[in-house]
Amino acid sequence: MKLQKLIRENHLALLFQQGNFGLEKESQRVDRNGNIVTTPHPAVFGNRSYHPYIQTDFAESQLELITPPNAKLEDSFRWLSAIHEVVLRSLPEEEYIFPLSMPAGLPPEEQIQEAQFDNPEDVQYRQHLSKNYGKYKQMVSGVHYNFQLSTEFVEKAFALQTEYSELKAFQNALYMKLANNFLRYQWILLYLLAATPTVESQYFYEKSPLAGGQLVRSLRSSPYGYVNSEKVVVNHDSLESYVESLEANVANGLLIAEKEFYSNVRLRGGKKARELLEQGVKYAEFRLFDLNPFAPYGIELNDAKFIHYFLLGMLWLEETSGQKEVEIGKQKLYQVALEDPRTETAFRAEGEAILNQLLAMLEELAAGQESLDLVQEKLAQFADPNKTLNGRLIAAIEEAGSYKALGAKLAQAYKAQAFERFYALSAFDNMELSTQTLFFDLIQQGIEVELLDENDQFLALKFGDHLEYVKNGNMTSHDQYISPLIMENKVVTKKVLAKAGFNVPKSVEFTSLEQAVAHYPLFEGKAVVIKPKSTNYGLGITIFQQAVKNREDFAKAVEIAFREDKEVMVEDYLVGTEYRFFVLGDETLAVLLRVPANVVGDGIHSVKELVERKNDDPLRGDGSRSPLKKIALGEIEQLQLKEQGLTVDSVPAKGQTVQLRANSNISTGGDSIDMTDQMHESYKQIAVGIAQAMGAKVCGVDLIIPDLTKPAKPNLSSWGVIEANFNPMMMMHIFPYQGKSRRLTKAVIKMLFPEIGN
Amino acid sequence: MKLQKLIRENHLALLFQQGNFGLEKESQRVDRNGNIVTTPHPAVFGNRSYHPYIQTDFAESQLELITPPNAKLEDSFRWLSAIHEVVLRSLPEEEYIFPLSMPAGLPPEEQIQEAQFDNPEDVQYRQHLSKNYGKYKQMVSGVHYNFQLSTEFVEKAFALQTEYSELKAFQNALYMKLANNFLRYQWILLYLLAATPTVESQYFYEKSPLAGGQLVRSLRSSPYGYVNSEKVVVNHDSLESYVESLEANVANGLLIAEKEFYSNVRLRGGKKARELLEQGVKYAEFRLFDLNPFAPYGIELNDAKFIHYFLLGMLWLEETSGQKEVEIGKQKLYQVALEDPRTETAFRAEGEAILNQLLAMLEELAAGQESLDLVQEKLAQFADPNKTLNGRLIAAIEEAGSYKALGAKLAQAYKAQAFERFYALSAFDNMELSTQTLFFDLIQQGIEVELLDENDQFLALKFGDHLEYVKNGNMTSHDQYISPLIMENKVVTKKVLAKAGFNVPKSVEFTSLEQAVAHYPLFEGKAVVIKPKSTNYGLGITIFQQAVKNREDFAKAVEIAFREDKEVMVEDYLVGTEYRFFVLGDETLAVLLRVPANVVGDGIHSVKELVERKNDDPLRGDGSRSPLKKIALGEIEQLQLKEQGLTVDSVPAKGQTVQLRANSNISTGGDSIDMTDQMHESYKQIAVGIAQAMGAKVCGVDLIIPDLTKPAKPNLSSWGVIEANFNPMMMMHIFPYQGKSRRLTKAVIKMLFPEIGN
Repeated sequence: MKLQKLIRENHLALLFQQGNFGLEKESQRVDRNGNIVTTPHPAVFGNRSYHPYIQTDFAESQLELITPPNAKLEDSFRWLSAIHEVVLRSLPEEEYIFPLSMPAGLPPEEQIQEAQFDNPEDVQYRQHLSKNYGKYKQMVSGVHYNFQLSTEFVEKAFALQTEYSELKAFQNALYMKLANNFLRYQWILLYLLAATPTVESQYFYEKSPLAGGQLVRSLRSSPYGYVNSEKVVVNHDSLESYVESLEANVANGLLIAEKEFYSNVRLRGGKKARELLEQGVKYAEFRLFDLNPFAPYGIELNDAKFIHYFLLGMLWLEETSGQKEVEIGKQKLYQVALEDPRTETAFRAEGEAILNQLLAMLEELAAGQESLDLVQEKLAQFADPNKTLNGRLIAAIEEAGSYKALGAKLAQAYKAQAFERFYALSAFDNMELSTQTLFFDLIQQGIEVELLDENDQFLALKFGDHLEYVKNGNMTSHDQYISPLIMENKVVTKKVLAKAGFNVPKSVEFTSLEQAVAHYPLFEGKAVVIKPKSTNYGLGITIFQQAVKNREDFAKAVEIAFREDKEVMVEDYLVGTEYRFFVLGDETLAVLLRVPANVVGDGIHSVKELVERKNDDPLRGDGSRSPLKKIALGEIEQLQLKEQGLTVDSVPAKGQTVQLRANSNISTGGDSIDMTDQMHESYKQIAVGIAQAMGAKVCGVDLIIPDLTKPAKPNLSSWGVIEANFNPMMMMHIFPYQGKSRRLTKAVIKMLFPEIGN
Repeated sequence: MKLQKLIRENHLALLFQQGNFGLEKESQRVDRNGNIVTTPHPAVFGNRSYHPYIQTDFAESQLELITPPNAKLEDSFRWLSAIHEVVLRSLPEEEYIFPLSMPAGLPPEEQIQEAQFDNPEDVQYRQHLSKNYGKYKQMVSGVHYNFQLSTEFVEKAFALQTEYSELKAFQNALYMKLANNFLRYQWILLYLLAATPTVESQYFYEKSPLAGGQLVRSLRSSPYGYVNSEKVVVNHDSLESYVESLEANVANGLLIAEKEFYSNVRLRGGKKARELLEQGVKYAEFRLFDLNPFAPYGIELNDAKFIHYFLLGMLWLEETSGQKEVEIGKQKLYQVALEDPRTETAFRAEGEAILNQLLAMLEELAAGQESLDLVQEKLAQFADPNKTLNGRLIAAIEEAGSYKALGAKLAQAYKAQAFERFYALSAFDNMELSTQTLFFDLIQQGIEVELLDENDQFLALKFGDHLEYVKNGNMTSHDQYISPLIMENKVVTKKVLAKAGFNVPKSVEFTSLEQAVAHYPLFEGKAVVIKPKSTNYGLGITIFQQAVKNREDFAKAVEIAFREDKEVMVEDYLVGTEYRFFVLGDETLAVLLRVPANVVGDGIHSVKELVERKNDDPLRGDGSRSPLKKIALGEIEQLQLKEQGLTVDSVPAKGQTVQLRANSNISTGGDSIDMTDQMHESYKQIAVGIAQAMGAKVCGVDLIIPDLTKPAKPNLSSWGVIEANFNPMMMMHIFPYQGKSRRLTKAVIKMLFPEIGN
């Protein structure tokens, strides 16, 4: 297979570097001291029979976190981060994720429960493993790295070569080359990335095979890790021999199932090995990697990139290893695994030679300086073993006292870190907060998510065969198209609601200043709101709270409104407080009061200092990705202070509320206060009726209510509806400044997937 | 009742002038010579048991066209126009609407069929009328004018007065004053607006009571019109006496039902007169008015305005007429009705006095110069009877030879006029054409329409209790909200369609020029389209139909695309012709081919002349309210000609097609060609599947197809989908340049109201 020539002569370098990447990361749930816990897998993660992201490996305590495949490694890392944030924030308060591969604080063997799957076969298989290998060996964790070549690359390369006449055979040969060469040279990755130099003696049941204080490169990849019996031999000379010998081992009873064959490469493409022959290899899984405890989620992006280059290098090599070379690779791996990590490796020359070949390949592929730097950095580690991951780890263990102590310390730090911006999904905080929260809940509950367009907050959700699309966290197939169109148009909204019998403030529309002024007698002596027909941000609105008393004031207000729109509405002013009702289906799920930006005095601090303190709240940010906004002290706020006879340096009395804005928008520093439980039920029913009159399933309804404790009456003095919103900001209710959080995103999921039933 | 003072002192002038106005207009269906036809009421108008707009009065041939009430008289006239256009365009080819009140060409009495209602009582009542009055008298037509005072005015005035303690009593008194004063002074309106000076002698069965050649002001309002027996006396002294005496007449058998009482005012508010006492008068119906044959739809707007002022004047008068005055009014009416229309009226002084009072009132109400001019014009007609409507009519009859001949001539002219812009609903041509067409079909089928927002093309439809909202003619409750959101985003659309297994051209997105150029090797040698991610109007698009051959061309095209958007797509180019499929539910209802602006030579005319001729097509307009657009001869077209070696003065050979544009948009003069019947069924099914994959009910799907006659195959060389549109321009299919019209609006109605079942 002359791949180099093929790529070189046909401009395939770019396609060759493309592919799909997925990560699977195992780890143990532990207490704050690093002891493995014996609690069941948290119920909040739903059912493992389908969960695509949060699974258990061997033991009930052993989480397995799985990213979907992505064309960019960076995206797989974003998923890894998101899944970790979901898990860390969902675990019981006193549980953590252990960041090292070798288990510490192992409970007595009988207390370790095999993972409790619904399917009895899954449980039986684990019981078999417990019996044959002992439970402790199964408690070791690592990272699996899935890699798929670009389909386009494979197809193009196939079309250009002459050796193979069938695409499937060509593709299988590519993956076989990748797998065998990897097995031949994997010791290099072990030397650079291994991170299991030691383990608690308990792990060996009786006597540790290691001398006192002996450190190795990788216990996990050594014969002391989970390895098959030496009798199990699988032949790598061809895919056919591989499949046949694997099947023979199962037939002989040396393996209970094909999946019991532990190899650092698994070829994927079917449930049984034989399907690889029939359907072709789809991708390869590389299982060599120890958890990197310095990476909060077990692996560093740069290391993952390096592994990608290494895999490309294995394809780039002219030769394809056969069974003989694979066996050599295995012996080298074992040898390197048990070397003293503080010493040079015995195979330094081979390692440097291979990395130099990688450099040459990357040059030829025009992969960029960053990739060359990355390989150079690894190359340097052959001369200085202390620079390898092991080197750094050993120093850290010494400092912490034990690897368990180090693991516990890091586990606590990583959990705390996941709570820093507890409302956000950090790796996806380019999306709106409501979508982040929905995404969080979807990962937690195990619904498959595809990000169709992040800029547009567009998700595809899948549960079994049931497909749903969601935009902005709440726009779904459950709303009628006509509903948002009704709500978008204030005039139409009012007509529709009035037709349905709801209390709507009366209004008259005008298309010219003259026309409006000519109708002034209609409004004289009335409390009215004058506003442009279509703007939404409070621009151009004048409120005559008492009554409009002269034609000049009226004309001035109308003129201001006409600056914003070609049509102006004069609307009856409603007396009362504005509340936002969040309606979903036939229920009001949340009621919110929005209070203009303010601080409360303590008799000691100035307004400026009080604002600074209030702004320290982690919920308050500047952009659009935090639930609340920082209070500014700009012109508008200072004018507001001036009207109260204050400046930014005034010291308000204890308990004195100082208002800093006239408008109650959250976007200008306003406070959101949950009032769901305080609101009289009758208004909640009205909000539901209003949503239904517009055919809306998910809807924000703004009601003006003078007294939220008294039952609603059928007239405008009891309540009035002023607006409805088809994109209600769920995050206001989910992360209120005060009062109870209402996890509306869960209700959206329940609406979309009632079959999940939780 | 001191109404003047009340209005004057409380700034109620404006409210006093507000109200609601409705029009009902009867007329006979006739043949081209003015003879009444004996065909049944056209089935296309649906069922008279519910039709709100198109009814029959006494006879099957006697149309009654009804506008809904409107706050502006102008709007009632727009409705009157629209309903007429619907009727005139829906009548059999050889049927017309007779524009005069007195019937001509009466068939033998036995051939006149009473209107065939579902309800047997309705038919029996008409049979009673036939027997008691003779059918011919019932064949007279007129205009009824419904007027409702502003509710706000009534409420405000009630609150300010002291005479009545109950709102209902006050309101009833207002309407009673209006009715009685009208009956007292109605002769004035008759003098000014009467238009029935003569009738064919046949109308009188045996001998005409009129001397040979005798002309009168109004046969219809004279004792020779439809009048009750003199024994029927209804007392107008109070609403109570009115109701009681009316009931007594029915009890005595002088009337078969209350509705048989023929008065020029009917108080409305219930099915029975007694309900007026219980529930209050809601509005009043004035039935005095002869059809104005010079108004295409029976009444002039200015006359309707004058009638409004006259009604206000009847309320403005200090005195309220009682039974005595009503009787005087009736006698004056009869006398004026039989006066020679070419002579001064006997009551000129009273008439002028009343009109002068109207002028004074309008001055005081600040009603504006236009209203004063209008009344002045009528005032002048007391001095010159020839200026009255009758005066003009008599001249026209003389010129035509007979009133039947005049009626036939005008009937033909008005029908032709209604076809001039056959695709538009003239009075509503501020709305989009698709909405106009839908509106047309709704009027025709008898579904109640409310125009919620004309600028926004927003309609409310009602059939029985079933309410639906429609925007842009096709956006309804039947589409899911998520569907248009998917279609709005090209990237999401492609992902969704690809997931569902449809042929989508592959594309790659880039966010920078450098990034795109770095990926050039992926595209070298391929036919590709380079376009901005989100613009829709062809801006920034470059097509490499053969293949992109060098990096410079590619970079240039990418740079052009980046001028329009921050993201650029490089998409595989599909070979074939683009067709637009209109899908509704599980059916493709229309397929359209759009051809770039072009002319076909005749060997005689220049390109310029050919364009002028093609632009003469009434379908071609300049704005957005015509189905096709005029072809321009601007820079772009001249450049296109130049490329073909032509100028605007070239004379193309006979049959030679000269292309004037590269793009096929209808908006730049392109031709729309219906291909529904030519398209292979398999593609229609694919379009339906595409719409369904996006959850869309109504959807435009653009497919590229190399050969529309061959069945679809599952690969891109057979077909590919390039876009879907949630607001597909229905009018392209309804009014194509070539091929069959597809009345899609009817399908929309059927979707919304399946219960109508036609």
